[in-house]
Amino acid sequence: MDVSGRGEFAAIARLAARLPQPPSGDVWIGDDAAVLPPPGERLLVATDAVVAGVHGDLDFVSVADFGWKAMAVNVSDLAAMGGRPLAAVVAVAGPSGTDLDGLYEGLGQAADRWVCPIVGGDLAECAVLVVTVTVVGSGDGQPPPVTRAGASAGDALLVTGALGASAAGLRLLRAGQGDGPLVAAHRRPQARLAEGGAARAAGATAMIDVSDGFGADLGHVLDASRVGARVEKLPVAEGATMVEALGGGEDYELVFSAPDPERVGHAFAAAGLPAPIVVGVCTEDPAERTLGGQPLAALGWEHRWR
Amino acid sequence: MDVSGRGEFAAIARLAARLPQPPSGDVWIGDDAAVLPPPGERLLVATDAVVAGVHGDLDFVSVADFGWKAMAVNVSDLAAMGGRPLAAVVAVAGPSGTDLDGLYEGLGQAADRWVCPIVGGDLAECAVLVVTVTVVGSGDGQPPPVTRAGASAGDALLVTGALGASAAGLRLLRAGQGDGPLVAAHRRPQARLAEGGAARAAGATAMIDVSDGFGADLGHVLDASRVGARVEKLPVAEGATMVEALGGGEDYELVFSAPDPERVGHAFAAAGLPAPIVVGVCTEDPAERTLGGQPLAALGWEHRWR
Repeated sequence: MDVSGRGEFAAIARLAARLPQPPSGDVWIGDDAAVLPPPGERLLVATDAVVAGVHGDLDFVSVADFGWKAMAVNVSDLAAMGGRPLAAVVAVAGPSGTDLDGLYEGLGQAADRWVCPIVGGDLAECAVLVVTVTVVGSGDGQPPPVTRAGASAGDALLVTGALGASAAGLRLLRAGQGDGPLVAAHRRPQARLAEGGAARAAGATAMIDVSDGFGADLGHVLDASRVGARVEKLPVAEGATMVEALGGGEDYELVFSAPDPERVGHAFAAAGLPAPIVVGVCTEDPAERTLGGQPLAALGWEHRWR
Repeated sequence: MDVSGRGEFAAIARLAARLPQPPSGDVWIGDDAAVLPPPGERLLVATDAVVAGVHGDLDFVSVADFGWKAMAVNVSDLAAMGGRPLAAVVAVAGPSGTDLDGLYEGLGQAADRWVCPIVGGDLAECAVLVVTVTVVGSGDGQPPPVTRAGASAGDALLVTGALGASAAGLRLLRAGQGDGPLVAAHRRPQARLAEGGAARAAGATAMIDVSDGFGADLGHVLDASRVGARVEKLPVAEGATMVEALGGGEDYELVFSAPDPERVGHAFAAAGLPAPIVVGVCTEDPAERTLGGQPLAALGWEHRWR
């Protein structure tokens, strides 16, 4: 069902009705701004736009999958700080006849999954579907949120899971093989929220989520931290290729540095999370960037602003 | 200057360099999420997307004007709650060759104007330019932020200034008469931030900003508050028509209800603000919506989701 002919205001009212209601004292959808209880110490804010045809091919993923992804990538940004989401606002710009109910179904499922209620939004006409989610969150507690800039030489480099599944899933979808865990990884990426919190608690010094590709995203951490890296091996998702693992991106696994990987392992085990995988070590020389002894070529993929 | 051929990461780094630097302890542009000191009591969040060709015609306004507007409309949403901005994040989806420096010039000027630093963002490729700004703010203090839902029968209805200037300015631009205060009102709309704070402090019971048109926006207040309205007269900007004042929208003047307009007048005078104009009164019957005794036709303009 779409909202053809109903106007923006009717669509907003209808979408609001399918979302959870605010607790007493809060203001959610339907006013000029949402009103929420703030975190106590540190407010986190992340925004990401997903563009049809760039961040999701609607020939291969549903509009609900696209909505899920718009939420997941933003929750993932908070995960990569070791933070926790409080709420999201959603601005949708899209063509006439866009299946807003389907879009909000996926947005709402992801919002439920990570306890990040949608508290406001905007709808506008646009020839291309662009969904911009902004998540506000909490960075309360100690140690502080984990930036990209704190890695030191000697820190271990870890990832929270195997890479390449999303790119492999897209490859299978394009080949008409539209099922299985790789396809699911592409359609419904998972934000590693619990993992980010465990890594922060266990002394992670720098962290990022793999959105653009392991090579590119590790590069951001190394640039910000002014260190190098010797990566020994990468965990490749079953059925994915090394190129997909290294450059595919959109896996949303976390890459982080930590001085004490044993402590990290204990923290993940205590939280009931799969053990993160040590993939290498940070080194003194910022120019050193190797995988299995070979130069780690810039295989990372950008959503390129040409 | 645009960023052709430089890639998303380089563009982000370059845009970040022209923005103010964060105070110690904050994290702004360049990490997964921004880290900020939160308000003490109430967090406000507003998001609005502006779409080239829908919310601004780049044949008649510059890309810097478009950036200004993207920020102003969001600050205006906080003004309409009687709130105060803390920071903004900006997601830009746009075509190759978009003048990002021009866009960020306008965004930055508006951010400076209302002390709302840009602390994060996102850049993505898209065939249409869509700029989505999200502003986080503070709703601290008493009385609480002003929603759309608190107007009572007997409350006076006030507006902070004359209406129709933006629509008249666009008319002049289309006719090739590109100068003067009406054109300036269209190119650089002003968020009535101080006015919103003064109205809240002086007991405003419901408030909204005129973005879609006086008729439509007053309608939102009346719907949410379940009251009617007798509007006696509308202040029309010099050079604008009554139709432009009633339905043009994008003036970003505030419309609010208050039981004691004299108290409101004193509060505005004390703050050095132009006196708001009493335009009518809220009434018991939600079906009563008149202007000068005539039915207030639904002349408001939607950014229509057809």
